Amino acid sequence: MATLGAHKKHKVSIVGSGNWGTTMSKLVAENVKANPNLFDQTVRMWVYEEDVTISKDSRHYDEASELCKGTQKLSHVINTVHENIKYLPGVTLPSNVVADPDLPSSVKDSTILVFVLPHQFIPRVCDQLAGHIVPFARGICCTKGVDVSEKGIRLMSEAIGMRLNIYCGALSGANIASEIAQEKYSETTVAYDPPPMDSRSPTPKVSPSSSQVDLISPSRVNPSVRSARLQPLPSDYPPLSQENVRKLFHRPYFHVRIVDDVAGVSLGGALKNIIALAAGFVDGLGWGDNAKAAVMRVGILEMVRFGKAFFEDSVKTSTFTEESCGVADVITSCMGGRNFRCAKKATETGKSIYEIEQTELNGQKLQGTSTAYEVHTFLKSKGVEADYPLFTAVYNILEGNVKPEQIPELIEPKD
Amino acid sequence: MATLGAHKKHKVSIVGSGNWGTTMSKLVAENVKANPNLFDQTVRMWVYEEDVTISKDSRHYDEASELCKGTQKLSHVINTVHENIKYLPGVTLPSNVVADPDLPSSVKDSTILVFVLPHQFIPRVCDQLAGHIVPFARGICCTKGVDVSEKGIRLMSEAIGMRLNIYCGALSGANIASEIAQEKYSETTVAYDPPPMDSRSPTPKVSPSSSQVDLISPSRVNPSVRSARLQPLPSDYPPLSQENVRKLFHRPYFHVRIVDDVAGVSLGGALKNIIALAAGFVDGLGWGDNAKAAVMRVGILEMVRFGKAFFEDSVKTSTFTEESCGVADVITSCMGGRNFRCAKKATETGKSIYEIEQTELNGQKLQGTSTAYEVHTFLKSKGVEADYPLFTAVYNILEGNVKPEQIPELIEPKD
Repeated sequence: MATLGAHKKHKVSIVGSGNWGTTMSKLVAENVKANPNLFDQTVRMWVYEEDVTISKDSRHYDEASELCKGTQKLSHVINTVHENIKYLPGVTLPSNVVADPDLPSSVKDSTILVFVLPHQFIPRVCDQLAGHIVPFARGICCTKGVDVSEKGIRLMSEAIGMRLNIYCGALSGANIASEIAQEKYSETTVAYDPPPMDSRSPTPKVSPSSSQVDLISPSRVNPSVRSARLQPLPSDYPPLSQENVRKLFHRPYFHVRIVDDVAGVSLGGALKNIIALAAGFVDGLGWGDNAKAAVMRVGILEMVRFGKAFFEDSVKTSTFTEESCGVADVITSCMGGRNFRCAKKATETGKSIYEIEQTELNGQKLQGTSTAYEVHTFLKSKGVEADYPLFTAVYNILEGNVKPEQIPELIEPKD
Repeated sequence: MATLGAHKKHKVSIVGSGNWGTTMSKLVAENVKANPNLFDQTVRMWVYEEDVTISKDSRHYDEASELCKGTQKLSHVINTVHENIKYLPGVTLPSNVVADPDLPSSVKDSTILVFVLPHQFIPRVCDQLAGHIVPFARGICCTKGVDVSEKGIRLMSEAIGMRLNIYCGALSGANIASEIAQEKYSETTVAYDPPPMDSRSPTPKVSPSSSQVDLISPSRVNPSVRSARLQPLPSDYPPLSQENVRKLFHRPYFHVRIVDDVAGVSLGGALKNIIALAAGFVDGLGWGDNAKAAVMRVGILEMVRFGKAFFEDSVKTSTFTEESCGVADVITSCMGGRNFRCAKKATETGKSIYEIEQTELNGQKLQGTSTAYEVHTFLKSKGVEADYPLFTAVYNILEGNVKPEQIPELIEPKD
């Protein structure tokens, strides 16, 4: 609902156009149509440009104009046939999704930036965006994962927020993109809790130096971004409240719950991959559903402990135990995700997971293995590996130090 | 560990000898051997006597004495070949498990009674036990389920406690009996938190009328048993602390976590069957793992709400979201339990679940359907069906009022 005095509308850009990015552009475009008072009716999607070919057996071969036959630019094809034939084939996009291969142009005047980039591209793309975005824009990061090293933990949303000097929330859940693109029912969690900085809000009384432009509350984010100064949204825009952000993502087939806990939501999407490896190792032993469920439960509690230990008050237990980004994403990942399947096959065949990666994934790397190593390095640097026996067991299985059969004794609660 | 002054040992009886009861007798018998200072070395198992035949192709045909060939009494066979050939074939029981078909004899002098009976036999067996048990015995109920009607909710443990005037805890978890009997790793939750009544404890200051024999705290159990007077354990026995009770059940392959929340543990084992039906209905639509995980998550939160609403302070959220009896049992039940499988098949074939029961279960009834009806009747009597949209949707699917496809809209959070 538009607020009195708000006559502008929020423009939304999707930064990324892979499988998940294109899916997000579809559902966001549906939602801006459903909420014309809040949102501009065009959703721009930044496309990393590449050449594609519409083959003769494509359903678009005849339908598309001559311009679109043969080798074409991906952005042109998307805008012509309303389908991302390379990354989300078979799914028609709403006509208000406009693909744009020019990064600065794709975000021009946008107050909402939805980031759906592969992990490794985030720094470079953010650097290219700097200076081209609206200074009071808000971001939502849909890329799962965190950067963990001996130095510490950096959330993707935090990396974006720091580089662009904007508030950036996170979206994560039990979200297999292709299922959502087909409008099969699922849920997600959006973490969005910007500090008070809206110019129409009462001036927050947090420190003498804060005025309309508030500091991010220390309890909300890592110390490194505490000093970032954020620009308030001008009063001629509808507020970007949790309620309005929910309207951007919630669909009848995609139920959104909004929480405050950006760190918890981000950690869930990363740590669940370690749990999926553990569940796969155990399932490969043929131990059945009791054992698999036990490992998942233990893993969820190690997630909670990790969040509480390293993000102080900002992380809530319920983010992991009650939200889609926690328990539900663990469940989905342990039912049939790549990490689970490869770990299971490794145990079944007696091969290392690296051999399985070669044969099953054409040499692509599993996210769970790198996360397990990164988390182990971090925990070791803090001297607390023993507090995370399941995460540590996964690392030691990957290293060949222990066997999957030892998981029960390794995670057995001590008397 | 025996306590100074404690020279007696706890005798343990298993009341029940089906698949799960025999499994419990095996692991309890292993644990009394491992803790000879605490427990008498014989574990008696009450067997509902019946005739069985050892067939010529049984591994026991030659091994067993002549006495055991042909048609024999089940208790005799168990004590001769150390196997429950009818209900847990193929699993050797420790020799310190002694089957006893005489109910009073099977519990004589036992201070710990482990109840593993089918739901419907509990009242009758308890009535037969009354007057034959040690008055200061403690019970642990391993039978899942609760009695729910318009009148209220009665836990199995409570029914046992009331009829025998003893404290009765509960054991529940992601526990498929056959997997545990084969010593495949699993976990369970034991709820055990007797009120202070031990004669060696300081006299509790709860009311002028209480002395060594304390009232059960109102916050712990239903109002109906608040006035039960419990007998303290004599001081010549080792205390039946949570630690010592854990020693009776915890094995390297069966990890036990002890909690206080008897009502939560009992509710988890009942309500998960409704969730398993919901997950099955949705999975039968081919909606994939996102949808299934979403339904499970929503169901866990309805469990929490149910427990909090009807058991006041005694039920903890974490019992459902963090323990084996909650989230892990939901996961196991939604991966391949009978309720899940039959509901899935019902959706896939377009048949009612009653038709599936006929063809798949030889007319046996699913526990989930009766629980769904009972819970619905109860919620309706309180006028709160709308607060439990998933439980209500399952009831309405069973009744043919709505279709599985409607679940997302029925459980959609209202703006």
